[in-house]
Amino acid sequence: MSLSMYEASVPVFTQLLTALDGNLAKAAVHVAEKKIEPDALLRARLFPDMFDFVRQVQIACDFAKSVPARLAGVDVPSYDDNEATFADLRARIAKTLAFIGTLDAAKFDGSEAREIVLRPGTPKEKRLGGKAYLLAYGLPQFFFHVTTAYALLRHNGIEIGKKDFMGAY
Amino acid sequence: MSLSMYEASVPVFTQLLTALDGNLAKAAVHVAEKKIEPDALLRARLFPDMFDFVRQVQIACDFAKSVPARLAGVDVPSYDDNEATFADLRARIAKTLAFIGTLDAAKFDGSEAREIVLRPGTPKEKRLGGKAYLLAYGLPQFFFHVTTAYALLRHNGIEIGKKDFMGAY
Repeated sequence: MSLSMYEASVPVFTQLLTALDGNLAKAAVHVAEKKIEPDALLRARLFPDMFDFVRQVQIACDFAKSVPARLAGVDVPSYDDNEATFADLRARIAKTLAFIGTLDAAKFDGSEAREIVLRPGTPKEKRLGGKAYLLAYGLPQFFFHVTTAYALLRHNGIEIGKKDFMGAY
Repeated sequence: MSLSMYEASVPVFTQLLTALDGNLAKAAVHVAEKKIEPDALLRARLFPDMFDFVRQVQIACDFAKSVPARLAGVDVPSYDDNEATFADLRARIAKTLAFIGTLDAAKFDGSEAREIVLRPGTPKEKRLGGKAYLLAYGLPQFFFHVTTAYALLRHNGIEIGKKDFMGAY
């Protein structure tokens, strides 16, 4: 085996969330310069029954904190979902990055075989091995929301490109 | 170490591309039933300087074939970019899935340390170790395009949800 569960999670989330933070900074400048009502972007959706931009960023952070926390076997920090500005969202990203930055890589050892229970005690409860939890569930979920957030910025004319989505690698 | 380079690539691409294929099937039915001109969807973009739906699917396939091929050390199959219908795109996905289905997991062993050269011989040439090539470059690129393709379907009213994006896990 050649990759650790840590390597396939924390650095990936960190790279993409750091990039998203930079895109939020650009969006904040854009709306200020163009005198756009911030909510026009913050509450934008790609379709009426999809989540809005704020929620996409919140959920991207949620997967970025919960997936590594569960793999490391530590409590998932709970955040209020009360962000209402670009600055609030950037603070949530900063909080998420700070949290996953504290996780000890050694705690991920063995997590590939550990059972993870999604939505425990609910009718939608699902049990996955750690490997499937990360690769088949956690990464796709995270990328779904981080990409949809980017798509909403692009769809609303923020001048960023795929390099800004990717971040530093 | 707990994951193989194979596990972190081929099954992930397979899961998401299989799901995308199902979404293309639904989109094809939708446009037929609603008597929508297929190009209204196939040529849709989220913003004028972004790639259209056809190109998003083509590029998702390109990463799904090139990343595992390079890690396995085999030639990347070359596809003509001539798809013009939903059926064409589904055939490209089928071809991609068939190709990565042939790759021998053992050939990925050691690829975490192998140097991969992106855009060789061009001014944008970049060298990455296999681990960064997969986790910091290949997976984010693939997810970018597969999610943007989904976003275009949702934005245009195809009745699918995140479960359809995720596929079977």
